[in-house]
Order: sequence, then C-alpha cells, then structure tokens
Amino acid sequence: MVSHRNYAIGVDFGTESGRAVLVDVANGDEIATAIHVYANGVIDEVLPGTNIRLEPDWALQDPNDYLEVFKQAVPAVLRESGVSPQDVIGLGIDFTACTMLPTRADGTPLCFLPEWRDHPHAWVKLWKHHAAQPEANRLNQVARDLGYTFLDRYGGKISSEWFFPKAWQILNEAPAVYAAAERLIEAADWVVWQLTGVETRNECTAGYKAIWSKSEGFPPNEFFKALDPRLEHIVDEKMSRTLAPLGAKAGGLTEEAARWTGLRPGTAVAVANVDAHVAVPATTVQEPGRMVIIMGTSNCHMVLGAEERAVPGICGVVQDGILPGFPGYEAGQSCVGDSFAWFVENAVPAAYEREAARRGLTIHQHLEDLAAQVAPGASGLLALDWWNGNRTILVDADLTGIVLGLTLATRPEEIYRALIESTAYGTRTIIENFETHGVPVTEIVATGGLPERNRLLMQIYADVTGRPIRLARTRQGGAFGSAMHGAVAAGKAAGGYASIFEATRHMAHPRDEAYQPIPTHQAVYNQLYAEYKTLHDTFGRGANDVMKRLKRLRDSAVAGEMVHA
Amino acid sequence: MVSHRNYAIGVDFGTESGRAVLVDVANGDEIATAIHVYANGVIDEVLPGTNIRLEPDWALQDPNDYLEVFKQAVPAVLRESGVSPQDVIGLGIDFTACTMLPTRADGTPLCFLPEWRDHPHAWVKLWKHHAAQPEANRLNQVARDLGYTFLDRYGGKISSEWFFPKAWQILNEAPAVYAAAERLIEAADWVVWQLTGVETRNECTAGYKAIWSKSEGFPPNEFFKALDPRLEHIVDEKMSRTLAPLGAKAGGLTEEAARWTGLRPGTAVAVANVDAHVAVPATTVQEPGRMVIIMGTSNCHMVLGAEERAVPGICGVVQDGILPGFPGYEAGQSCVGDSFAWFVENAVPAAYEREAARRGLTIHQHLEDLAAQVAPGASGLLALDWWNGNRTILVDADLTGIVLGLTLATRPEEIYRALIESTAYGTRTIIENFETHGVPVTEIVATGGLPERNRLLMQIYADVTGRPIRLARTRQGGAFGSAMHGAVAAGKAAGGYASIFEATRHMAHPRDEAYQPIPTHQAVYNQLYAEYKTLHDTFGRGANDVMKRLKRLRDSAVAGEMVHA
Repeated sequence: MVSHRNYAIGVDFGTESGRAVLVDVANGDEIATAIHVYANGVIDEVLPGTNIRLEPDWALQDPNDYLEVFKQAVPAVLRESGVSPQDVIGLGIDFTACTMLPTRADGTPLCFLPEWRDHPHAWVKLWKHHAAQPEANRLNQVARDLGYTFLDRYGGKISSEWFFPKAWQILNEAPAVYAAAERLIEAADWVVWQLTGVETRNECTAGYKAIWSKSEGFPPNEFFKALDPRLEHIVDEKMSRTLAPLGAKAGGLTEEAARWTGLRPGTAVAVANVDAHVAVPATTVQEPGRMVIIMGTSNCHMVLGAEERAVPGICGVVQDGILPGFPGYEAGQSCVGDSFAWFVENAVPAAYEREAARRGLTIHQHLEDLAAQVAPGASGLLALDWWNGNRTILVDADLTGIVLGLTLATRPEEIYRALIESTAYGTRTIIENFETHGVPVTEIVATGGLPERNRLLMQIYADVTGRPIRLARTRQGGAFGSAMHGAVAAGKAAGGYASIFEATRHMAHPRDEAYQPIPTHQAVYNQLYAEYKTLHDTFGRGANDVMKRLKRLRDSAVAGEMVHA
Repeated sequence: MVSHRNYAIGVDFGTESGRAVLVDVANGDEIATAIHVYANGVIDEVLPGTNIRLEPDWALQDPNDYLEVFKQAVPAVLRESGVSPQDVIGLGIDFTACTMLPTRADGTPLCFLPEWRDHPHAWVKLWKHHAAQPEANRLNQVARDLGYTFLDRYGGKISSEWFFPKAWQILNEAPAVYAAAERLIEAADWVVWQLTGVETRNECTAGYKAIWSKSEGFPPNEFFKALDPRLEHIVDEKMSRTLAPLGAKAGGLTEEAARWTGLRPGTAVAVANVDAHVAVPATTVQEPGRMVIIMGTSNCHMVLGAEERAVPGICGVVQDGILPGFPGYEAGQSCVGDSFAWFVENAVPAAYEREAARRGLTIHQHLEDLAAQVAPGASGLLALDWWNGNRTILVDADLTGIVLGLTLATRPEEIYRALIESTAYGTRTIIENFETHGVPVTEIVATGGLPERNRLLMQIYADVTGRPIRLARTRQGGAFGSAMHGAVAAGKAAGGYASIFEATRHMAHPRDEAYQPIPTHQAVYNQLYAEYKTLHDTFGRGANDVMKRLKRLRDSAVAGEMVHA
C-alpha cells in the first residue's frame, strides 16, 4: 500500500533563467528540477526586434520570458516526477529584486502593447539596471537635506537598483511611458498576479527595495513631492499600500495559469519573495545569530536580529522581512564569484589551461587545487575585493580592486587564492560591523553556487571569519525556499504547514559536513585581516581617494577618445 | 683603389653570454657581430661537476666561459668580416659588475685548481649573487655608526651585490678559500689580465662597486678592521691601490691571447669597463644633462654632472667614472623588462596567445598593439613597479608590486600598459630626484633591448617624463662602446683616437627618429604621476609598511611549510 504524499513546487526567477523544483512536503525530498533559460536573457545591448541600442548601465528583461518558465519548467517537473497535479498543494515563487515593470491596470506589461513595444522604458528594469544613479543620488540627498530618518534602516543610502530611482528614471526620460503606466510593480508580484489574477504585493520587496516599513509605511507624499511634484502620489496612483506578509496565500491558480502549468485550478499560490531571503529557511535558519550567506557572483548576507538596530552600510533591515517576528538584516558584497570568473577569463596563462585539460579538470578546479597548496600568508599577497565597488559596509560603487605584494615569483594560483581571501576579509568586515552594532553572528550557513564547487573557498571563509560554516542539504536555496512557502500557503488543512517555522522543521535539513576554523590559519589570517582593514580604510574612507580620481580620469579619457573617434 | 681601413673589436660580457663586435674605426660602421653563450651560464642550483647544491640567492659563474668568448666570438667576427688581424688596432671589453673572483697571485682562478674546485666560494660571484646581504647590512651599519661619509656617494648605502660584502662573505663562510685567494678581483679586470699578462684594475668598477674615489681612495684600513680584524689589510693584501683610468691602454695582447683570438700579438687592449657605463659614449652622450637609460630586464640610468653632488638613493657618483672630467652618476630600476616578462608568462590568457599566433605576432607585439589603443588614463589603473623591490630612489629590496584600479571590465592589455607606465613613473621619480639635488636632466637617450622592440614603451616614457627620447644608431651599446675604447687604447698614432670624446665624434651616431612628448598625454600623466608619488611615499617611506610585514609573514609561512613537509 502506497501512502498518500503531498508536494509543493517552488519557482526561482534568476538573472538568466527560471528554475522549478518539486518537493515532498513531508520531508523536503527534492523529486524533480527543471530549468528554463530566458529567450531574451539580459537585454543590455539592443532592444529585441529593433535596432534601438541601449546605453551603458542599462539592463532590461522581457516579461514573456517569465511566463515561459511557468509554461515550460513547471510541466517539466510534473513530467519528470510523475507526480499527479492533484497532489501538488502549493506553489511559491521568488525573484531577483528590485526587478520592476510598468503595466496597465489589468496587469498587461506596457512592452506587450504595440504602441510601447519600441520604447526601452516600457520593458522590465532588471535588478542590475544601473542607469538610475542620478535619481538615486538625488533621492539620498533630498532625504538627508530634509532630515528624514528612513534611510537609517538602509545603512544611510539607497542605490540605483532600487524601486523609486528606477521609477523616477522612467518619469524623467520617458514621461509618456510613466503616464501610461497605471501600475509600477515588482516582477515578483507581477508573476503572482499572472498566476492568481489578483494583484498582490509582498512586504519583503517593499521593505528591502521600496523604503517601506511595517511601522512607518512608505515615505510621506511630501517627500516624493520634494523629489519631483509629479511623483507626489506615486504610491497611491501606481503602487499599493496594501502589502501581504511572507508565508501568506496570494490566491489560487486561475484557469489560464492552470493550463500553463499543468496544475489544477485553485492550487494555492504563496505571496512572492526575494531569492536571497527565501533561501534562509531553506538552509534551516530560523533564529538570530546564524548568518546565511548566499555565495555566487556576489555574496548576500542575511541574519535575523533580536531587535531592530541601525547598522551603517548594510543593505537594509526590515521587520518580518525574512521570517515573521524578527527584524531581517541584509548586507552584501558586490563581487565574489564574478572576480574569480574575471581572473580565469583575463589572467590565467595558456599553460594552466593546457595542464587543466590534461588533468581532466576545469580551470577553476585546477586553480583551486594549486591554490590549496599555498599556505596562508605564503604568497605575500593581499587584495582588496572591490572589482565591482563595495556594497557593505562602504556603499561605494566607485571603489576598485587592488592586488598588493606582487613579485617576480608570484604565480597565478597565488593571485587566485588572494582574490578568494579578499572576499573572505570582506565578509569578516561585514560580520564585525554587525557585531559592533549589536547584531551577533555566531555561525555561518552557506548556500548558492560557490559552496558546492569550491571547498578551498569554504575553508578560507571559516579560517578568516573564525566561525564554523555549515551547508544546507538543498543545493537550490531559492527554489526550495519557495516550495516551502508554497506548502505554508496551502496551509495545514490541505496537507501543508501552519507556519514557515513548522515547514522548516520538517523540510529543511543541514548537511553533516561543516568547515571548522583551523587555529594556525586563523592566527595568520588575523594578521592579514589587520592589513586588509588598514588598506580598506585608507582607500575606502577618504584618506586616499585615488580610486575615485582614477575613475574620473578614465571617464574623461574615454570621453576624449569618443570625441576623437 | 681601396683605402686602408682600421678596425677595433669590443667584447661585452653579459649575464648569459659574451658578444664581440668588429667596428670600422673611421665611421663606426658595425662590420660583424658574434655571440658565444656560456656553457655553464648562471650557476645557481648545482656546482658544475658535483652534487653540491647552492643556497637561494647564490649566483656563480665559470671563468673558463669568459676565456671561451675570446676563443670563439673574436675569431668569428674576423671570419665573418674577412678583416685582416693586421687591421685590428685595438680591443676593449666591458663586463657586468660587481662580478668578482678569487685567484692566485698569477691570476689562476681558485676554481681552476683541483683542491678548490669543489668549493662554491672558489668560483666567480656573479653581480646578482645576493647571498652577502648580512655582510652588506653590517657594513652599512658600521659605516653609519662610526660616522664615515663615503656612503653619501652611494645614496646612503651599498647593496649585497658589491665587492666588499662578497669578499667578506667568502671570509665568513670559507676562511680557507679567503686565505688561499692571493687576489680578489673584478672579472672585468681578470679578463684584461688574461689578455695582456698584466694585472690592471680599472677606476670604474672600483668607484661604483668598491667604495673607491679619486680624491679619497678606498675606505681606511681602520674601517675594514672595524668590520672584521681579518679584513684590515684586504686592499693591500688582495686588491690594489693602483687603478687605471678609463680609455687608457692596459697593455698588448700576449702570444697566448693572440692565439685564442686570432689577433696579432701586441694588439692594444683597453682598461676594462662596466657594461652600462661604456654604453654612454656609444649613444653619443659626452656632456651633462643628457641621461642615458639602458633599458632591459632592469633599467640603468647614467648621467654626467657638472660637479659632484650627494644625491640620495642613487647607485653612486664617481669622478671620471663614465667619461674623464665629469662626475658620472648611476641610478637604477631593478625590474622593468622582467615585470613585462613576468606578466606574459603568468597573466596572459590563452585566447590572447591564440590571437597573437593568428596574427603572426609575438605575444609581446600583440599586447603592445592592443595597449597602444588604450588612451592615457583610460584603463583607470595605476601600478607600483616594485616586482623586484626598488633600487633608486628608495633602495629597498623588500618592497613589492601593486596594481590598483582593477574592475570587472579590466583587460590584460590595460594591465600590461599600466606596468609599462609604472616603470616610466619610476624613471620620472629618478629624474626628479636628480634635478632636486642639482643634477639636471634635459633629454633621454635610450639603448638596450627594450627600445628596439617596444615603440609604445618609448612614447610612454617620453610622455611621462616630459622629455624627448633619442636612440643611438648602434643596437649593442656595451660591445660598441668597448670597441670605441679599443680605438682610444690604440691611440691616434696607430690609427685610433686621442680621447673617448674624439672617438665619440667619429664613431657614435644618433638615429634620426626621436620620441617627443605629446602634450595631451603629458597632462594626463602628470595627474597619474601625482597619484603614483602618493602611493610611492605611502608604501615606500614607512607610512604603511604592509609590504615588509607581508614578506615576513611569507617567510614564516614558507618556513612553517618546510617544517611540516
């Protein structure tokens, strides 16, 4: 006799693709996974179907690519698992953020309409669309000048990636698009709307990306008016003050969405979540003190606090923003795996590629193997991990990377190791900043792509931070966490769970392996970290602003070249 | 009717090989060139014919390799040119320095004797033998403590490469070898001795490498006694206070040396010279203000002064040390071509190698071509050129290289260009240091391997230093200058010249091409140089000694590894 089992599906919308995972609600077993790569991917050169070139720093997406994930990846996990749609009790989604788009009142993206399709501002602005920097700068300035305190929750300033700079850029550069946009909405909430037929906005993206808080709401209309009189009523005109908490049910699948996905109509759909935040319960974390780091191209650091504190330089703190009942803190490093990829693409000699091929290894594996033979301190190298600026704690996109200590004996694997170490120092800086401001960090749980691939990196992080690092059993934190939220949205009566905590206890599991700090390594890394901090403060806090001056020189040199060309 | 022509031969003893050039005395035409590669090369791992391993920092040579240059390369240029030995009026030689060896009273190298052949200290210590650092440190300390002023002529301290540290190392580590060494002599003077049968020591190596000056002679015996009582009489016991000026005739070829070379007995042999110094007249320079830079793996800067000044950080100033009648100043950068070679070997990706091969270029040419398309300032990069420490003006071997300004958009050719620029900033630092201390530098004449190969480098040096850079017609400054000295040693009556100045006017020629500073580039480089100076002083003058601390950490990490291994 086969006992009846319930399943939930999580869908994770990444930068290049969407991923669905089908999970056994009782024990968290991952039954099937499917990935759908977006046809239009990241749109950063030419608007699809046109000759319209995008300026640097632009990054758009096509909302149709999101719908295709529902139409391709969800049916695929049903097929692969053989699970009946009747046994799928809930669906959750998570998304990059802030990834936002303008729509009509019925949810139709402006870029789906022929009259707006050729306008770049009618498309989705992806999280890494960085062209709204002037608007971000102005917003921060006005908030400071007028004495508003809401930026204290975000380390003192917000970035060009956030919701209001992006919305304001539309208004500034394309007022007709702004006027036609009856709704401005996070893509996370837009896909839930498409699934349920009901516009439901989540507290998490509002809190972390749209300056909303449970106690204060959005900034007052006077603030928006001070930015631009046309923005005064943006929240009431194009957004919503009604926000749903994480874990709540947004609604049931519509007939149409049921046809897309192959699931039954009415299947519970959870309120949308952010990819990093939804990974926290997936890694088993449900209490303060255990920091989750999502390690990939960049690092995202999430930790629950016992109470809300103002911590300088962090991305943000949002009450109930990760798990209900706790202030959820987010910090980040803007360049981790990206700098390793840069190194492999730009600085690894042909002889190393040949040797890696001979050994049947990827070049990353070969470098990791060689770098693991270099003792801490033995390279004489020290790097500042600012290839893509510094997010936390300096919040300065104009900072750049350094490698110091180079000699004629320096080998590629030593530089590679120094880059890894520099990102570990960056994480330690973030941890110490949290602890200095009253948010303890006693243990690290790692998830994301890097921890799976690079054991050396994990050991270095343990040695540098002096904290044990654990891994969760799931290798797909976002999609798995979304499935957990799907089970919570379904509710206990339907075979799911009453809360995310209950879901965590049953579905999320740690791996046995953990990385423990090695005391002899820690002793060396404490000395290297002291040197890192000195360089960090010299170049990051104004003692020598050479990096900014070099960037200005670069900009004028490049502009001069363009004039000559 | 064929008019009678006179020829001179110059022999340049380099680090890996010796080179002979046969030159027309009347006009400086280079008729033939031959190179002989040393069979034992640089001996830095195992003593030839033994299993004796050398310690790190050791670098020895075999004096027989020098004799083979006379036996192989000189006959080769006679053969190739068809010139009769009767028409060769003089021979000059130049050598690396300080490259020194212990011999018997008759000039027999100790390492030629069976009883000493298996002893490393019996062999030639090559200029880059760096194992006498403790002796150099102690010598500098004692000189300072006792208030001697002779180090002021050498920028304040001498290095482990110099004559007395090397001699003292023999005494400390092998007193029996020291006792058996009836003579301690520069290899430059030793080869002239082998050619002429007469021990003739030159003022140039004595002045630049053995703390001798025309007005003060060697340091007093009491100083050597203070170093070590056994050294008290080193000059009188194992060296000589009789030194011959540059341009003088050391003697005539012996019968035996005539058989080696194929030249006639009695052919005039010039007093020996140093490779860098002898290149100065070869490049047409015979007056103050025009700096000669020999550009290769390292840079050597030579400039004549109107009067002798104490210039901090330089290698040395020696009255008549380059040309008679002038104080000759020498400065240096310890890593130039070496850092480009390091870059190509350790940091250029396979794709670049493939593209270079496709274009039929060397990787250096391909990189130069790409780097030439990067406008000054456009990379946003700034490097400190200390891959092998800093010779002038900081005189600190423990400094290391930096690359600052790295981003995810940084390309290999930009780093390559930044390395070239950093060496140009290093040269500008040296020039400004000379000018600040009363030694003007108005123009640069470049020679050596790099100026021939890298036009981009030459333009960058002109732009960064703000000075025109000329090239000499000869591409082999050392050997050519030695041939000029051979013509002077022969004298006017024999068809040569009365002085090096007369020889320069007839034999040395500039090339038409010159590199002129481009004002728009200069404007950018002035800003970048200001940033370089700030970093130079921060990391080079004690504000942040991170480089030294990293080296100490490296040393103890490596030592720890050896204990564990």
